[in-house]
Amino acid sequence: MQSYQPFSTHPEQQIASVSETELIKRIRIWLGKVCPSFPEGIGDDCAVTPLNSQDKYLLTTIDGVGWGKHFDEKVTPENVGRKLLARNLSDIASMGGIPRRAVVSLWLAPQVDLDWLARFYAGIASLAKEYEVDIVGGDVSAATEGVLIADLCLQGVSDLPLLRKQSVPGDSIWVTGSLGGSLLGKHYAFEPRVKEGQWLQKKRWAKSMIDLSDGLAKDLPSLVGGHVVRLLDLPISEAACRMEALDGRSAYSHAMSDGEDFELLFTLDASQDSAHFVTEWAAEFDLSLTCIGLIESISAESQFSLIDESGSKLEMGRGYEHF
Amino acid sequence: MQSYQPFSTHPEQQIASVSETELIKRIRIWLGKVCPSFPEGIGDDCAVTPLNSQDKYLLTTIDGVGWGKHFDEKVTPENVGRKLLARNLSDIASMGGIPRRAVVSLWLAPQVDLDWLARFYAGIASLAKEYEVDIVGGDVSAATEGVLIADLCLQGVSDLPLLRKQSVPGDSIWVTGSLGGSLLGKHYAFEPRVKEGQWLQKKRWAKSMIDLSDGLAKDLPSLVGGHVVRLLDLPISEAACRMEALDGRSAYSHAMSDGEDFELLFTLDASQDSAHFVTEWAAEFDLSLTCIGLIESISAESQFSLIDESGSKLEMGRGYEHF
Repeated sequence: MQSYQPFSTHPEQQIASVSETELIKRIRIWLGKVCPSFPEGIGDDCAVTPLNSQDKYLLTTIDGVGWGKHFDEKVTPENVGRKLLARNLSDIASMGGIPRRAVVSLWLAPQVDLDWLARFYAGIASLAKEYEVDIVGGDVSAATEGVLIADLCLQGVSDLPLLRKQSVPGDSIWVTGSLGGSLLGKHYAFEPRVKEGQWLQKKRWAKSMIDLSDGLAKDLPSLVGGHVVRLLDLPISEAACRMEALDGRSAYSHAMSDGEDFELLFTLDASQDSAHFVTEWAAEFDLSLTCIGLIESISAESQFSLIDESGSKLEMGRGYEHF
Repeated sequence: MQSYQPFSTHPEQQIASVSETELIKRIRIWLGKVCPSFPEGIGDDCAVTPLNSQDKYLLTTIDGVGWGKHFDEKVTPENVGRKLLARNLSDIASMGGIPRRAVVSLWLAPQVDLDWLARFYAGIASLAKEYEVDIVGGDVSAATEGVLIADLCLQGVSDLPLLRKQSVPGDSIWVTGSLGGSLLGKHYAFEPRVKEGQWLQKKRWAKSMIDLSDGLAKDLPSLVGGHVVRLLDLPISEAACRMEALDGRSAYSHAMSDGEDFELLFTLDASQDSAHFVTEWAAEFDLSLTCIGLIESISAESQFSLIDESGSKLEMGRGYEHF
């Protein structure tokens, strides 16, 4: 009988040989016509589906957490459950949407502890209550030993979702909070910027938006596409400075490349009054806000590049690659 | 530092010590108020969400396939992908809904073979095209060695979804196709009964409906609740007979207890004209149809029970338990 072994011993045949970006590109090709084009299909934080209703658009996102990859025995079960929902909430936030309901799929080794699982669900339930998200269903599957994986698919709504890649030269680039070093704690304790995202959408301030899950170095090019961006400022977190002391890599590099900040990164149209925006923001939120740069021009090679105030090209590093 | 080990060495603390039904009951308790009551929350094949649109209801379901549990090296990658979508289509079918779009979450060990993955997506894409389902997004996560898991969350719509537990004494119980022995091939090759489900809903024939994923012994009580059911007939498949020859367990027992038939099980109101229904069905579909029983009365203990034509109690076996 023929064997269809899904694991390869040839490195060049293994998924580890391609980047996450490349893998997603291939998936789109493999799916072909059943994968609609952006923004209804793959390519933004949420899939966007037109609805014949007052809400206008349904937003759908799916994201998970896995034992040995996203958490270990040092993390409380409540924080694992909280993070599972929070990272999906951040995707809805990045479009300025209103989160509504979720389903959860669990893959559990037979040895999974019932008390651990109860506390994991308590973590989901507590954040779901806070953001008025209903958990409407799910699935529980038996997995092999050592496996504990959870996927959460979250639905939200929006009358006009904020997409990526709507920006042109002259637009300014902004980020909420401060960046880097999330490994020191923020990657579990972060607050998804749902109300900030909704405000930026509702008041028509932001023109395009994304959440910072893989680091500025990877997410900024995803937001603005093939432009030259002049970097004006970078809000380096205190945790990024502590990371520099721990691993010797500069705080700047941590702020640029660390994943899981879950802050909002967005653009403002050149015609907007930045000073007025900053005042309005400060009246509404305690959270810091930084104009990190300006879109200068369309890059000659349609490749994103970053320059400093004097016009010299800056190295960004890679951001977080999942494989 | 405190340790939050999610795996237990005490058998009574492990999820393997409880049934799937009991585990889902506990999850509802753990979630508390964020889990709305049936049918908007947990407890049917899909979660049902009212929409302010022509479609009226959004249906959401999530189901997955995992290496070593749902498939092994004997299954073609195309069939693994096909099954992932087909089992979710069957959930939409069981409510008489119209499937619309899906997101896919993958958990991949670094060694997963790129060609295997391409063929897996080809299997999804081919069935998605057939049922006009868009694949609108997803997620790809790195997993530990030996792990290959895929979750698919499917959305559909319906103007009046067919739910469980709407039936009363006098109603008749019907099943499509024949039952048992799906392990011999049908569990990969099955055709989700989407058009049959839509027809039963649209023509207002069915009163309640479910798809047979865990076997009649488990799914019939889920459909009709605490009633006494008189068994009149059982469409035993040819595969169930072959299984009897292979493992010595009776074909009847295979038809009663085997999982993954993915046929439709539904009730007809006592006032409906069964003969007319059978004629209309035959004019529409090639698929066989069997009236397997009648709801006799509400059980004294609110516990489901099955009797034969002479009124003697029948043993059903357990159906498929996932843990």
